[in-house]
Formats: sequence, C-alpha cells, structure tokens
Amino acid sequence: MTSTHAPASDLDIARAAPIRPIEDIAAAAGIPAEALELYGRYKAKIDIAALDSAAGTRLGKVVLVSAMSPTPAGEGKSTCTVGLADSLARAGQRVMIALREPSLGPILGMKGGATGGGYSQVLPMEDINLHFTGDFHAITSANNTLMALVDNHIYQGNALGIDPRRITVKRVLDVNDRALREVVIGLGGPTQGTPRQDGFDITVASEVMAVFCLATGLQDLKKRLAAITIGYTYDRKPVTVADLRVEGALTMLLKDAIKPNLVQSIAGTPALVHGGPFANIAHGCNSVIATQTARRLADVVVTEAGFGADLGAEKFMDIKARYADVAPDAVVVVATIRALKMHGGVAKEDLGKPDVAAVEAGVANLRRHVHNVEKFGITPVVAINKFTTDTDEELAWVLKWCAAEGISAAVADVWGEGGGGAGGDDLAAAVLAALDAPGSFRHLYSLELSVEEKIRTIVQEIYGADGVDFSVPALRRLAEIEANGWGGLPVCMAKTQYSFSDDATKLGAPKGFTIHVRDLIPKTGAGFIVALTGAVMTMPGLPKEPAALRMDVDDDGGAVGLF
Amino acid sequence: MTSTHAPASDLDIARAAPIRPIEDIAAAAGIPAEALELYGRYKAKIDIAALDSAAGTRLGKVVLVSAMSPTPAGEGKSTCTVGLADSLARAGQRVMIALREPSLGPILGMKGGATGGGYSQVLPMEDINLHFTGDFHAITSANNTLMALVDNHIYQGNALGIDPRRITVKRVLDVNDRALREVVIGLGGPTQGTPRQDGFDITVASEVMAVFCLATGLQDLKKRLAAITIGYTYDRKPVTVADLRVEGALTMLLKDAIKPNLVQSIAGTPALVHGGPFANIAHGCNSVIATQTARRLADVVVTEAGFGADLGAEKFMDIKARYADVAPDAVVVVATIRALKMHGGVAKEDLGKPDVAAVEAGVANLRRHVHNVEKFGITPVVAINKFTTDTDEELAWVLKWCAAEGISAAVADVWGEGGGGAGGDDLAAAVLAALDAPGSFRHLYSLELSVEEKIRTIVQEIYGADGVDFSVPALRRLAEIEANGWGGLPVCMAKTQYSFSDDATKLGAPKGFTIHVRDLIPKTGAGFIVALTGAVMTMPGLPKEPAALRMDVDDDGGAVGLF
Repeated sequence: MTSTHAPASDLDIARAAPIRPIEDIAAAAGIPAEALELYGRYKAKIDIAALDSAAGTRLGKVVLVSAMSPTPAGEGKSTCTVGLADSLARAGQRVMIALREPSLGPILGMKGGATGGGYSQVLPMEDINLHFTGDFHAITSANNTLMALVDNHIYQGNALGIDPRRITVKRVLDVNDRALREVVIGLGGPTQGTPRQDGFDITVASEVMAVFCLATGLQDLKKRLAAITIGYTYDRKPVTVADLRVEGALTMLLKDAIKPNLVQSIAGTPALVHGGPFANIAHGCNSVIATQTARRLADVVVTEAGFGADLGAEKFMDIKARYADVAPDAVVVVATIRALKMHGGVAKEDLGKPDVAAVEAGVANLRRHVHNVEKFGITPVVAINKFTTDTDEELAWVLKWCAAEGISAAVADVWGEGGGGAGGDDLAAAVLAALDAPGSFRHLYSLELSVEEKIRTIVQEIYGADGVDFSVPALRRLAEIEANGWGGLPVCMAKTQYSFSDDATKLGAPKGFTIHVRDLIPKTGAGFIVALTGAVMTMPGLPKEPAALRMDVDDDGGAVGLF
Repeated sequence: MTSTHAPASDLDIARAAPIRPIEDIAAAAGIPAEALELYGRYKAKIDIAALDSAAGTRLGKVVLVSAMSPTPAGEGKSTCTVGLADSLARAGQRVMIALREPSLGPILGMKGGATGGGYSQVLPMEDINLHFTGDFHAITSANNTLMALVDNHIYQGNALGIDPRRITVKRVLDVNDRALREVVIGLGGPTQGTPRQDGFDITVASEVMAVFCLATGLQDLKKRLAAITIGYTYDRKPVTVADLRVEGALTMLLKDAIKPNLVQSIAGTPALVHGGPFANIAHGCNSVIATQTARRLADVVVTEAGFGADLGAEKFMDIKARYADVAPDAVVVVATIRALKMHGGVAKEDLGKPDVAAVEAGVANLRRHVHNVEKFGITPVVAINKFTTDTDEELAWVLKWCAAEGISAAVADVWGEGGGGAGGDDLAAAVLAALDAPGSFRHLYSLELSVEEKIRTIVQEIYGADGVDFSVPALRRLAEIEANGWGGLPVCMAKTQYSFSDDATKLGAPKGFTIHVRDLIPKTGAGFIVALTGAVMTMPGLPKEPAALRMDVDDDGGAVGLF
C-alpha cells in the first residue's frame, strides 16, 4: 500500500506519459468515427446526434466522487476520480470519466490544475488547462454578447424599461482580474451609453455557464438561456433574455461548445471533460450532456462534484439529478490524513508530522459527511487518498474507525500508482460492492416547500446548523421570489467550502451555529435560487507572485512552468 | 460577361456548396498529414515545424488585392481575392489564398462577413465567422491576462512605479460593446485595487493582435510581446511587458493560435485564414506566418489588405513587407461601378441607375490609387468587380478608360461565377501577365526619416494632401517618441477609409487639403507608430436592430440568420 512518489511534476508526468490517438480511444469506447470532431490529435468533440444509432439504450451507473470538507491544501478529488475510473477499468468494467473543464484565470494565478495529479491525470493536460476546445471562450462570448445587447437596448431607447440600477447579470472574463470587480461603465456622454455601476465575474461564475451545464440538449439550452433574468424594469418586473429576443443568437454562439469533449486518462480510460460552473453560486458539476453521453457509452461513469459533500454532493442530488436522470448509484467520499488532522486542529505547517490523535479528533468532519450522504438513500464509500507523508498507523486508524462505524472504506494510492497500477484496486472493489447493493435514491427536500423551508432543511439536515437567519434584504428577496412564481425552484447554497458552517474557521463538525443568508439571487435560466451566506468571491484576484511569471514556451512550442 | 446572380444568400450558397475533407485539401496542397492538426472535418491548423522537410525552399509570388476608396456598400475585396485565386487555379497555377479572420463582434451587430460572397467564399463560412479555431479568443485571453497582471502589479505595491493615469493598453473583448468604451475600474476600496479611468477595445484593435500578425515565428512573437509598451512610470519612463516578466506566459497562451488555419474556397482552393488586425490603428493584413506558409506551399499566393490602397496597400508595403519578406509581385486594385459612381457624386440610393457620366466623374479616385501603387515600383491591375446592377455601357467605359491610361484591367464576375467558373478568367490572365513582368519593389520612405517626415511623405505622396498639421499633444508625443528611441519605426496611419483626406465626406480625388494628426501612439511591440487623424473608433457599438435578433439554430444545430 505504500509507494514512493516520483519527484516529477504533474506536467513532467503528463508529458512523459504515453498518449494514444483520440480516434483509438473513441473506437474502444464505442464512439463511431462519424460522431467524432477532432481538435488536434488527442482531443475530440462528440456529435451526439451521430451517436444515436450506435449507443445503446441502457444507461451506465453513476459513481459520484465527493469529499469531506476540503482544506486549502487540496484533497485530490479529481485525482481520485481519475484513479478510481482507471482501477475500475483494470477490474474489467467498461468505464468513462466525466469531469469539469478547468478555468484559465486561476491557472495563471496560483499553481494547480483540475485535471488530476501524479499518475491519475487526464491528457493532454497542457491543452485541457489552457484553451482546450474553446468552450469557456464561447461561454464568455455568449455572456458578453448578451450584456452588450442589454446595454444597447437601454441606449437605443429602452423599450422594455430596464432599470440600469437593477441589472443582475454581469460581463465575464476567464481571467483573475481584481480591478474589474467593481466598475462604472457607459461613461463618456450621450453617444457612449448610460452610466451605471457594474462589475465583472469570472466566466465560471456566470449563469450562462450554469445553464450550459444543466441543459439536456440544444433546444433545452435555448429554453434555459431564454429564461435567464437579466434584471428588472423600473416597476420591478423581471426582464428575461426572451424579452430581448436574443436566445437564438446566444444558442448559436454555443452550438459547438455544447458538444462534450473526449480525452483520455494516462491509463487510457476515456474521459468527457465538459463545462465547469462554480461550486458556490452554481452547482459545480460537469455538464449534464457529458454525464448522460458517458452513461450511454459505458457501464460505469465516474464523475465528481465541487467542494465537500455538504455543497457538491447536495447540489448534485437536489439540482443536477432533478433536471436530468443522473442520480448516483454510489457516492465516494474522499478523505485525506492531512485534512483529518487539519479538522482535528493541526496547523497547516505541522500536517507532515505523524499524529494519530489529531486524525481521531478530525474524523467527526468525515462522519457528518458520510451520514449526510445516507440521507439521500445512498450508502457511501470512503476513499482515503494517500499522500507520501501519511503513516501506516494513521491510515490503519482510519480504516479501523470506518470498520467500527460500519462504513465501507479503502486506501487509494492513485497519485503514485495510478495509470493502471494496483493503487486503486481496493477502492474499486469497494465501489463495485456498493454498486451491487444500490440504495434507494431520494432528494433531500420536496420542491413544494417554500424557498425558506428548503434552505432551512439543507442547513439543519446537512450542515448541522441550529437554524437560519435571513438578512432584511434577503427576507425582501424571498417575498419577491415567491411573488414572481420562482418559489418552486431548488436552492443552490453559496457557502464557504472549508466548514459546515458559514465561518471558514469552524473546522471539524461544528455545533450550535446559525447560517446567515445575506441575499438571494434567482437564476431562472439555470433553474435555482442561490442563497448567499457570507461574502462570495465571483472574481478572484492574482497573488503577489502570479504563476504567470514562471510560464514560458520551449523551443518546440511546449508549455513551461504550467504546473 | 453578364450573369444572373442566384437569389440565394451567402449562407445558403455556402451551405449548398460541396466541401471536401480538409485532409484532401491539405494533401493536394502538399501539406503532409503529420503537419495537420484537425479542428473538425473542414478546418485544420498547420504545424509549421512539421512542414520543414516537406515544403520547398522556393517561395511563391505574392498577389496583393487592394481597392479604390471603399464606400459603405462594400467593394467585395475578399470576394475578388477568393475569386481571383480560384481563377488562377483554373488557369493551372498552384495557388493559395491568405485572408484575415473575421471579428465576431461586428457579425452580431451588422449583417456581413469577411469570408467573401456569392460563389467566391471560403468554407466552412459558418465556422470561420463564429469562433473558428479560437485564435481571437486566445488573443483576448492574452491581452486581458496582461492587463490583469498590470493592475495586479500596481495593487501589490507597484514596484515599477507605473502611473495608473498613463496606462496605454486597454482590456479587449471581441464584442461590439459601446458601454465599455469609457469605464472606471478598480472601485470598491483598498482590497479591490486602484481606481483608474480605462476603457475596452475590440480584440482586433489590440496591439497583441498586431504583434500576432507581424510575428515571424514563436520566438519572434515572444520578443515582440516583450517589447509592448503598456504605459509609463510616474517619471515618464516607458514600461514594457518585459519589465513585468510576463512575455513567456502570454506567448504560452498564444502558442497554438499562432499556427495558421487551413480551409478551402468553394472551388476547393486551399486558403490560410489567420489573424485580423484593424486596418486603421493597425496594419490590416492576415498574419505574416500565414502569408509565408502559403508561399512555401504555392507558386502564387493571393492575399489582401484592409480598406483602400491608400491605407491597406501602403501599410502592407511599408510595415508588413519591412518585417517579413512578403513584398508583392503584383497588386490588384478592386473597383466597382457603384463605388466609382459614389465618388462621382451619386447618392447611395441612386447607385442602381445607369449613369456613365457619374462613373467618369468618379474615376479620379481610382486613378490616384493606381498611380500610388506605381510609386512602390509595382504596375497594378484594376479588377472591376461586377455587380448585377452594372450596365454593359458602364463596364465598357471603365475598360476603355483603363486602356487609354495604359492600365491593365479586367471585369471580374466572381460573385456570380466564382467557384471555378469563367467569371474571373480575364482577371487571372491580367494578373499572370503582371507577374511575368515584375517591377522593382521599393518602400515609400526610408526608416531613417523622422516620424514627422515619414507622415509628411505618406500624406503628400499617397493621399495628395498639401501637408500635415500636428495638434499640440501630437507635437509633444513626437518629441517623446524620438527621445525614447522609437523614431526609426515605420508609421501606421489611422485615417478614414472613405476619403484620401481625413474628412470622410470628401470623395473622389480631393485636392487642397491638410491632414490633421491629433495624437500618436507608439506600438513598440508591433513595431510602428500609429498616427491618429480624426476620431478612430476602437470599440464599435451595436445598431438599433442588431443582427443577433435574427439569429438562431435549426434542429440540426446549424446557424440560422448568420448572413
């Protein structure tokens, strides 16, 4: 179970890894050549229409990879997702991975990608982490075209009576650009437009991204785009994209992007990497189209949800699974010794020191996540993602604790032994056992509850809070939402991922706290009501020494310093 | 010579046209399979490194397609470029087209693309006019990453002492967004940055785009990016991208975009469509890399330059041909009966009426352009691009006038009879004759002249102005430019394309006017000094009824209402 990690960087490992032509990966996955739109040698978009005759009608099972409350160090959820899929393939299963696309902005800011790590990565990682097949750029274009049309509508006479002070959609860029968080636009006099306070979000925070990822097809995409509320009139009536008559143009701008992207893991497992909404103000999963396409092609689809199970898994079950038939058949909760120690009170700089007592102190966090998953009718599997600093004693303690609690668990060394090695065999076996004993999936709450009741259910049942406290603006917004007929939508909680509470410093399994909802944002295209707790950063900034300063190209045109 | 134009739209014609797999086009053009990076079935990027062994060392001849002063109706320069290339191929030549990529912003605003028209189009026009292979998105990313890094540098302590009031590079979007022309950014207090007045340009107006199109390779691209001046310090010293140490990251973001894109004309002629800088504040030609790659693969390369010959051709000769060995062997000046009439004083709504006298009155505009081309040592060919409203008498008059003036000329019906038809045969014959009798190319001015003298030479020799008048700020800027050691750069004139003068209403061949230079912008990465005459719009707006309102997708995912 122990392994020596190679000292190579993720980029070095990815570069050295054998990679097969994407046509071969597609053929092995049962994707006919006519459904394949190549983007270079190792990436392809899949034309789903051309799949119809080829793909079977039976849909593969869904394994959702979630996690305990993450720490700033990262728990390796994507690494586990890729490694588990490779190990399931090694066990003879017909497997496909479904992952989110990484956002370019943070890559230029802080080291760290979203394509897995070590020997459990998807390839070509360099391309996937840079512009990939241009999906996010298309989403940026569609969003910003919409906003140019909104401001142009106001400039050209404002027939709809849009209140420039009540526009709720922002322009976006896939760049970490602090200076664009709060801006004033439309300056320069009557020929340049109407001045108004505005701001930019990062592309992944846009409702267009959320819509893109929840759409079940091109016509559903258009319907959802049409339903986006861009703001309100002077007399407080919602204004939608349909009112502006531009849903057709926006759909046209997204017609190619909406096709899922096929790539491969280092071990050659086919992977659909498609879409990537924020996990706080959106639902944080890859596109429904990718998940469903994978299910048509494979017996088991391994996918993930953003942040810990309190956020990602809950949203997967209550939002994504509501809009598409993708309820998970098994849920993996990724835990690490380091995260357990941190939740047990150890400081970040001391995580490398053996400390079984701290692991024991932090296990309450894992316990709450595990029992939360059970509330959806699914028996979870705990994956202990092995790091080089973990001791055998610490790993043994967690396995013993899980056994005592009746929780299925396995140590996974997929970073060091991925790529078809034996490091994920135990986890694969545990997941296969879970798939053979499916539970009875249920949503956490009924849509018939009021928005307020839905929020109360989530914070009490999942977070373990005593209750919820709404700010005065939030209360007013709740009334508006019900009055506008949006009360039947599910809720998307925007909360810190580091704690069950809305206070990032309350680690472990806190008790006796209240969740503070300061505002609500109706996302009528995506189809959920965002509940904001605390400050949510929708446009990240760059650090003092951005990763961009270390990046370059080599003489062969390859990326240098990417990770 | 007459033909009945089909009533079909450009999109209809493009859709109905036969299209061959891009591998076949590549193979016929001598591009080995290993140099091809496919983007779907009908587009590919060319890996130039993989061409080395295959392509010969002999470089093909360059035919530059320029035009008389354009009118708002459009003269069909791209249509003539494509049609001429098809006709040259029909005449047995090994031909390649090199064209600019269209900008997405204007496409959503006003009808009209940049991929030719009628039966002289490049395919797949729908893809080329939408996101194509993502080059412009990569340029947008690189430019905006740079600007985020600039504002982050200031926010993180401003070690370089950048004066926030003297930042000269703007953020960009490939969207027509009037409301972003003048903005204030960095609002929100000390954690959000430093407030400053700013604005957004359209992507094609960026210096990154100009650099991209003048770079001779990846290392030259990096060198030029490093040399971009982003602004000035508090003590007025220029600050470059190299000072910020981010040229490597920007080059990395452009490493795939810089590979030229291969597509085909309706007649199957190979076309490299790559890059597309503004023709006013930049040089307005496709990338040097595309032109040079085409020359390595073909005996004749047909390419174009933006606007009329006073702007596009002059910049091609004095900027592009200076930085790369691409001096034209022949120059085509496109004229239309409609444009001649308009320069002869006919109003736009009356252009359909036969009027030989007006044609005669307007021919002075054509004459000046023709003689201007001769100043570069090249004998031009006039192409009369036939429209359905042209009468035989009008066409005959122009041909007779050209013959009397000793100017080689031909009527080209490439809109209606392109695609390998006979409509461009006369033009092809005239161009081949010109290629057989090459002139002796020379630049208009020596780089050793001062910037002021260079500008004076252009406005007197090419525009026919009496002289040039510099505003007080422009005079100060001239002194700064010489003091900073940039006096040896060529000049890029930003002037209205509708007139030889800087007054768009002065049609024909005006005399007795002065050019007013109101400001100068050093583009030290691209390697030219922009001279601004009059107002130059670097961020277009949308019209009252944007084209976007007519756009949609059909059930098969095809674009509707694109053109």
